Amino acid sequence: MTSLTDCQQRDAQDPLRSLRDQFSIPGGVIYLDGNSLGVLPKTAAARVAEVVTQEWGSGLIRSWNSAGWFEMPQRLGDKIARLIGAAPGEVVATDSTSINLYKVLSAALHIAAQDAPQRKLIVSERSNFPTDLYIAQALCAERGLRLQLVEPEEIPAALTPEVAVLMLTHVNYRTGAMHDMAAVTAAAHAAGALTVWDLAHSAGAVPVDLNAARADFSIGCGYKYLNGGPGAPAFVWVHPRHADRFWQPLAGWWGHAAPFEFTPGYRPAPGIARYLCGTQPMLSLAALECGLDTVLAAEPLGGMAALRAKSLALSDLFIELALQRCAGHGLGLATPRAHEQRGSQVCLTRTNPKAPDGASGAYAIVQALIARGVIGDFRAGDGDRHPDILRFGLTPLYLGFEDVWQAVEHLRQVLESGEWRRPEFNQKMAVT
Amino acid sequence: MTSLTDCQQRDAQDPLRSLRDQFSIPGGVIYLDGNSLGVLPKTAAARVAEVVTQEWGSGLIRSWNSAGWFEMPQRLGDKIARLIGAAPGEVVATDSTSINLYKVLSAALHIAAQDAPQRKLIVSERSNFPTDLYIAQALCAERGLRLQLVEPEEIPAALTPEVAVLMLTHVNYRTGAMHDMAAVTAAAHAAGALTVWDLAHSAGAVPVDLNAARADFSIGCGYKYLNGGPGAPAFVWVHPRHADRFWQPLAGWWGHAAPFEFTPGYRPAPGIARYLCGTQPMLSLAALECGLDTVLAAEPLGGMAALRAKSLALSDLFIELALQRCAGHGLGLATPRAHEQRGSQVCLTRTNPKAPDGASGAYAIVQALIARGVIGDFRAGDGDRHPDILRFGLTPLYLGFEDVWQAVEHLRQVLESGEWRRPEFNQKMAVT
Repeated sequence: MTSLTDCQQRDAQDPLRSLRDQFSIPGGVIYLDGNSLGVLPKTAAARVAEVVTQEWGSGLIRSWNSAGWFEMPQRLGDKIARLIGAAPGEVVATDSTSINLYKVLSAALHIAAQDAPQRKLIVSERSNFPTDLYIAQALCAERGLRLQLVEPEEIPAALTPEVAVLMLTHVNYRTGAMHDMAAVTAAAHAAGALTVWDLAHSAGAVPVDLNAARADFSIGCGYKYLNGGPGAPAFVWVHPRHADRFWQPLAGWWGHAAPFEFTPGYRPAPGIARYLCGTQPMLSLAALECGLDTVLAAEPLGGMAALRAKSLALSDLFIELALQRCAGHGLGLATPRAHEQRGSQVCLTRTNPKAPDGASGAYAIVQALIARGVIGDFRAGDGDRHPDILRFGLTPLYLGFEDVWQAVEHLRQVLESGEWRRPEFNQKMAVT
Repeated sequence: MTSLTDCQQRDAQDPLRSLRDQFSIPGGVIYLDGNSLGVLPKTAAARVAEVVTQEWGSGLIRSWNSAGWFEMPQRLGDKIARLIGAAPGEVVATDSTSINLYKVLSAALHIAAQDAPQRKLIVSERSNFPTDLYIAQALCAERGLRLQLVEPEEIPAALTPEVAVLMLTHVNYRTGAMHDMAAVTAAAHAAGALTVWDLAHSAGAVPVDLNAARADFSIGCGYKYLNGGPGAPAFVWVHPRHADRFWQPLAGWWGHAAPFEFTPGYRPAPGIARYLCGTQPMLSLAALECGLDTVLAAEPLGGMAALRAKSLALSDLFIELALQRCAGHGLGLATPRAHEQRGSQVCLTRTNPKAPDGASGAYAIVQALIARGVIGDFRAGDGDRHPDILRFGLTPLYLGFEDVWQAVEHLRQVLESGEWRRPEFNQKMAVT
């Protein structure tokens, strides 16, 4: 069994160890929720203050030119591109993930309507992140299409000649299960369908190569593994073979070929810039750039491949320790064991045969851990196929092997002491 | 003629004078561009720093509950409501103006399609802000509708039985001309059309009473007269008689009735909350709240009515001084003289009979003023109906009567000295 000393030795030998010095992490906290909101880069406070006091306060309207505000979506997009296998000029940082999904799914459906008008189906996963399904439902209602939800293993059979678009999240938000993007994209293309990939739990977490996979459309989130801050703008990528084919419907002035000509007729900018819509929140974009820089700082140390290797080592260790040291407490593993099938999180289930109502206790266990400074999160199941989940994000940029050991030790103590049964840990509140 | 001493006396007697102490304005600057980007509230730097270091840095994911992040769009919306004649719970602060327009115009067109499917026309003004026209064009293309652009005086005749929606910006961005919202709305309703009002140049600038006008849908901007900072989130209002009738198509999880149940089916929240879509940028929302508070600080001093009286006094003075003191230099007035027909800006034109190509010189004059610290902006004309514009926003929260005197004095000197002819003032760059 791996010991605390073993973990400390692994930290001492970790070539990525210095990357954690980029972050401001509160004392007493082991943060296993970077898949929900990444931690604060140390540079962000000063950079945001500069935008507020210098660029806004002193530069005022002049900063649109002098501080480069106009180019922020493209400049940040080029940084994101390096993390997801895209080329410079193929990505913009803008708006929210949901809104960007609306843009790319609209465009994909336009292309399908032109190339294969008989295809009337969007296929997605039943346990996809709900907002993705809501956006797809709205577009189906507008366009007279149908959304078909399947389980992951049913995807190959669902790729019928009726399918216009296969819309998937690369890494599942609940379980951490990861699709093989290249293989699934190839299967979709072989069946005549386009692909839309949501990288919310992938960008900055696992290596992604959109161009190598010949993916069609992609979006992702700025505030999870990219450490961009609460509600940071999201991003959007469109393969160059599609980018100029259609307007996306959120055709605002920032996507115009010449926004400052103020002409009454829309003329889309070439390439990805037409996926911009309105004026972007500069304070939040500035913080996002600080977050992106923390991930790009790994490039001289091996980049995403090195981060991935450490992420897998951390999560293997978490799985090993949790199942060994918490044995007898009903924990199970919801995340696939195979490396190629999972992202950068470990999800546990809990069966609690003693509970008369079958309640898993997972919510209260997560609350008890949070009270000890071990911050993960809880995702409710539906009692049937999807059980309650204890979700632990393992972010190699700022977590070490001892952190994993200590987190599991807290979990063990919470379970053995029964402190999770305290009433204060069973009061539900809004969760993210 | 009004003298500098007169202006100084008016400042000394101005009951709203203390409101300017809320702002951090760079030395040597007379800022006449608050209609493009409002100035920095003194509270914003500390508040944004608190969000970055305390709420994000220390609170991390817990701040969604403990720092009230979830309620920010509604909490700020309630503050905006006080400025535009809306009730609490009727407004949310979210996304960009362009995106919010897409939401409300979609909803308006849904209602029209159900109540009066034969109506296939959106009517708007030819000189409406272009992004509004682009969004309308995109929706027309999606839904098989047509956008008809008219001049302001042609609106009554354009309200035919074919019109589904009349979409207008309340105060014109180029000229400052203001529509009579109540009268135009009544005329639209009498003709069976719905109204969409863009308040980008109205909210915080002129009194607005959406409910008294029985308007249908409205959107507006956070970074102009509301002083919310560069790219601050925008806002959206829907009359309660319409709010629950339709989904808007940007149906993301923040607009769900129970977002944290993570159910695969969309169920819209009641009321205005269904106009939310994805996660919002908290740093930029925090700055917006500081801006809103600067406008609400006028409430004990008479609120928007008192601000309006001062705005009109400032703009009357600007017009009087500019036309008197710069006589002989070809300046004309593009903004209507009648108080009820204009917003909070003064727009000048310039004819330059000596220029062989008919060039107005307006661009270079604005650049020469900016070099002197008098920041207004330039809007290019189309040579025909719309001339080049020198645009001066007069924000009563932070401008005084002496500021107006000094600004006009600089304009006089720029014109009389001919310094605007210098090459450096004639180099075009991107403008906002």
